[in-house]
Amino acid sequence: MVVGLGTGSTAAFAIEALALRHRQGLRFVGIPTSQRTAAQAAAAGIPLTSFAEHRQIDLTIDGADEVERGTLNLIKGLGGALLREKIVAAASRRLAIIVDGAKLVDRLGTRVPVPVEVVVFGLEATRAALEALGASAPLRLSPAHDPFVTDSGNHILDCSFGPIADPARLEERIGRIVGVVESGLFISRADPVFVADAAGVHRLDSPRAHGRIGT
Amino acid sequence: MVVGLGTGSTAAFAIEALALRHRQGLRFVGIPTSQRTAAQAAAAGIPLTSFAEHRQIDLTIDGADEVERGTLNLIKGLGGALLREKIVAAASRRLAIIVDGAKLVDRLGTRVPVPVEVVVFGLEATRAALEALGASAPLRLSPAHDPFVTDSGNHILDCSFGPIADPARLEERIGRIVGVVESGLFISRADPVFVADAAGVHRLDSPRAHGRIGT
Repeated sequence: MVVGLGTGSTAAFAIEALALRHRQGLRFVGIPTSQRTAAQAAAAGIPLTSFAEHRQIDLTIDGADEVERGTLNLIKGLGGALLREKIVAAASRRLAIIVDGAKLVDRLGTRVPVPVEVVVFGLEATRAALEALGASAPLRLSPAHDPFVTDSGNHILDCSFGPIADPARLEERIGRIVGVVESGLFISRADPVFVADAAGVHRLDSPRAHGRIGT
Repeated sequence: MVVGLGTGSTAAFAIEALALRHRQGLRFVGIPTSQRTAAQAAAAGIPLTSFAEHRQIDLTIDGADEVERGTLNLIKGLGGALLREKIVAAASRRLAIIVDGAKLVDRLGTRVPVPVEVVVFGLEATRAALEALGASAPLRLSPAHDPFVTDSGNHILDCSFGPIADPARLEERIGRIVGVVESGLFISRADPVFVADAAGVHRLDSPRAHGRIGT
């Protein structure tokens, strides 16, 4: 089995749990979504692989910054790994998301911006095009106040649109802008979502998963 | 005036001509589309600027690998600079293209592949997605037979689809693949195209340029 390994604090717990299962005998190889995750997984003893070895991932486990109730559409990328996370998600048969209850919203964009990974060249023109869609789009900075650089050498604009009425259409409009590499909108990709809160863990299945409820 | 400076052998002639005009007193600043073009323009005495100074480009002059008669849709990127060329084109009020007659085709894809710039991570999965659109998609190599690396640190897959019936739709389908940064299809961007052949230079205007013919 090939497992995609997400990035972020929630994914880090999942990787520890997977490492325990690996020591107990579960056979799988992992594809990490960031250099950070690769280091953690390797240290925990999970054998790593790459797309050169496996085009198709069976299951990816990751966190999210917002989950829209009902649709299970996501915003991801506050941790800076949205591009690799989206490439891994696109190559996965199944994307399982784990979040705490505070991440659930009625509409995406309520609490967090949409991170958009952009090419460094022409950044200002790309930013103007994103602002023309109605966003404020500040450049993400590193803790040292330099422009944040992703694992693929790009920058991130954190685009605040406010609550988003039609995330699928917005993803498409953002994607058409020349200079945009990828947005943090994950549409119709997550299934299922596990939500942890004071009452325990409950599972949300995609509305697309007809006949799969309860499985 | 802000002038976008293309990349390639034809663009190099245009830059020399622009440098001559600059020495004769024409006032403009240039935004180069590659490190190679930046070096040539600087050596020729053209003052350079960037998007940090100017969001909007008045005119870009560039070459192309194929020009479709009738639509003036283009394939660009055999020189490796498609991403920066497309960002500059998107920010330009006008994109003037100069080609020799051998570049004119009835359908794009007849003689050259569509170069597609892709993120290094997940390259094999991205390639599989492009092949699923019907292309053969070999990885471009450098003269030293390493994978070619673009100015933005990505790779290029040269996607042969054969003659393309609907280039606008193909551009959109390629653009939706996660892991694709940009394709070398330039749809409804060029106007005018200057074609040089044994009979001299003639000008093709975009079919979109209603009322501008002859200007």
